[in-house]
Amino acid sequence: MKSRLRAVLLAGGGGGARLARGFYGLLDQVEPLVLTNSGDDFEHLGLLVCPDTDSVLYALSDVIDPERGWGRSDESWSVLAEVERLGGPSWFQLGDRDIAMHLLRGDGLAAGRSLAQVTTDLAERLGIKGLQIVPASEQSIRTILRTPEGDLDFQSYFVGRRCEPKVESVVLQGVTEAEPAPDLLSFMEKGCDCVILGPSNPYLSLAPILEISGIVEALASAGPVVAVSPIVDGAAIKGPLAKLMTERGLEATAISWVDEIKNMYPGLVDLWVLDSRDHDAAEVLQGRGERVFVCDTLMTDTRQKVALASQLVEEVKRFV
Amino acid sequence: MKSRLRAVLLAGGGGGARLARGFYGLLDQVEPLVLTNSGDDFEHLGLLVCPDTDSVLYALSDVIDPERGWGRSDESWSVLAEVERLGGPSWFQLGDRDIAMHLLRGDGLAAGRSLAQVTTDLAERLGIKGLQIVPASEQSIRTILRTPEGDLDFQSYFVGRRCEPKVESVVLQGVTEAEPAPDLLSFMEKGCDCVILGPSNPYLSLAPILEISGIVEALASAGPVVAVSPIVDGAAIKGPLAKLMTERGLEATAISWVDEIKNMYPGLVDLWVLDSRDHDAAEVLQGRGERVFVCDTLMTDTRQKVALASQLVEEVKRFV
Repeated sequence: MKSRLRAVLLAGGGGGARLARGFYGLLDQVEPLVLTNSGDDFEHLGLLVCPDTDSVLYALSDVIDPERGWGRSDESWSVLAEVERLGGPSWFQLGDRDIAMHLLRGDGLAAGRSLAQVTTDLAERLGIKGLQIVPASEQSIRTILRTPEGDLDFQSYFVGRRCEPKVESVVLQGVTEAEPAPDLLSFMEKGCDCVILGPSNPYLSLAPILEISGIVEALASAGPVVAVSPIVDGAAIKGPLAKLMTERGLEATAISWVDEIKNMYPGLVDLWVLDSRDHDAAEVLQGRGERVFVCDTLMTDTRQKVALASQLVEEVKRFV
Repeated sequence: MKSRLRAVLLAGGGGGARLARGFYGLLDQVEPLVLTNSGDDFEHLGLLVCPDTDSVLYALSDVIDPERGWGRSDESWSVLAEVERLGGPSWFQLGDRDIAMHLLRGDGLAAGRSLAQVTTDLAERLGIKGLQIVPASEQSIRTILRTPEGDLDFQSYFVGRRCEPKVESVVLQGVTEAEPAPDLLSFMEKGCDCVILGPSNPYLSLAPILEISGIVEALASAGPVVAVSPIVDGAAIKGPLAKLMTERGLEATAISWVDEIKNMYPGLVDLWVLDSRDHDAAEVLQGRGERVFVCDTLMTDTRQKVALASQLVEEVKRFV
């Protein structure tokens, strides 16, 4: 067998973290760099909270809470209870074990380490080996949702308001001034066989990565770009994607998702991965000349995560 | 009765916190400003830890752990256990409830509030009313102990090395550049009837306050300055004072303590408060022309703390 496939996986939210876990189970075949969305990062209680990066860290170390899909399993909530008792902001749920990791992140940042270095340190502390997890940029990018209630930062919208306000537009603060993570660029310089866009929200999870200056050009210069649909059977697996698409006057279907990505990033994606239940949509897209791969994209357990990653690897090899 | 006695209490460590609790029980008679030692402050796990200020906050809100004399009573340790599990620095004990308060401090500092404002916020959250608690300076002061093992910051010496290394000298980093807390100066401008030096370590708790540029002049310009002995019956109540005095070639006695303070701050103190068990020392000092007040200075319960504060107030009134 030839050397391992060098792959960049763009991961935002639960779907990206699950697929990252899949690739982590295939390190004999793949050498992945997981590029995490930092647009959901925010400062809270003096801590830098990086929800999408942490979901990847927790998913890969198998300590993510499987029910919630975020945070630590076997968690306790003593600190948050006291913050609430003292009249502090307790709307954002940080468990005690989660806070321990945030303190270690804060410790590293206070010591002058970069976000990427601190993330590598945390991965090591959690026992993750053999792949890089890299926040998309060292510079601050903040996803802001313009709503009839005013501008809401991502967590205020997502957690504080439970995605209820209508989203008129998405503002990605700082994204045009941001630069791609140096670790991404040096990974790509050594050769990159493929780029995988995880099954993540294109507006809220992929755009804060893909709008970074020069990143699309860098990614497109590598091997095939594969996009995994976050829409299955006319609905988002989780999160507000279907609602956001409807608010934009779109149907929440796999076809609309393909159209949106093509509209946002023309020519970027070489291969679309749709779920078996969207077989009809796949045929329509193939009729339009799109290259589509259909498989079971649901990832409820580790076996399924690795199985999906494995199928993607096989499909990319056929491409290469 | 005339208006309340305006008093500045210098508080460092456990003794200062206990006496502050005493004054807090006398708000009908006293209007205190508690000036806390910030030389023990340090950055840990990305948090600004202010041990002496927090001891006052916890003592006044009656949530301080009575056994340990620091930190919260009814505390749990989930976060620290996880920090340790992740291989992080767990030598400094921060309980979950304590961490909640540190997160709120971090939140305030990140929002651009001053150390004094953040301290006031925390006092309010803890239900403390009717007196000001003010860190001695807004600028960073760090107590460094020069030992045969090299320079140790205060917590590394005190907690990490349990005060074992011999202290060759004490360096108060930043103290000459530091300015007195603005709240102290505005309190004193409105008139100050007395200054109380709590029963605190002169080298490690009082010097980081008293060495701040201009502060001795400011304090000496007010009513009488009263110093409460941290040495009782030839020993320090708690902490390394007796050991430090011995290492300096001094006897750990109330008389040596008076000599040291007079040597360090000539003419500052108008009234020495010694414990009843040091009656002989008091007589010697009176023979030398010192003004000495003898009483029971032990403060094991709230009643005793208030009783000592009350006797100090009566004694100051006689002075005024």
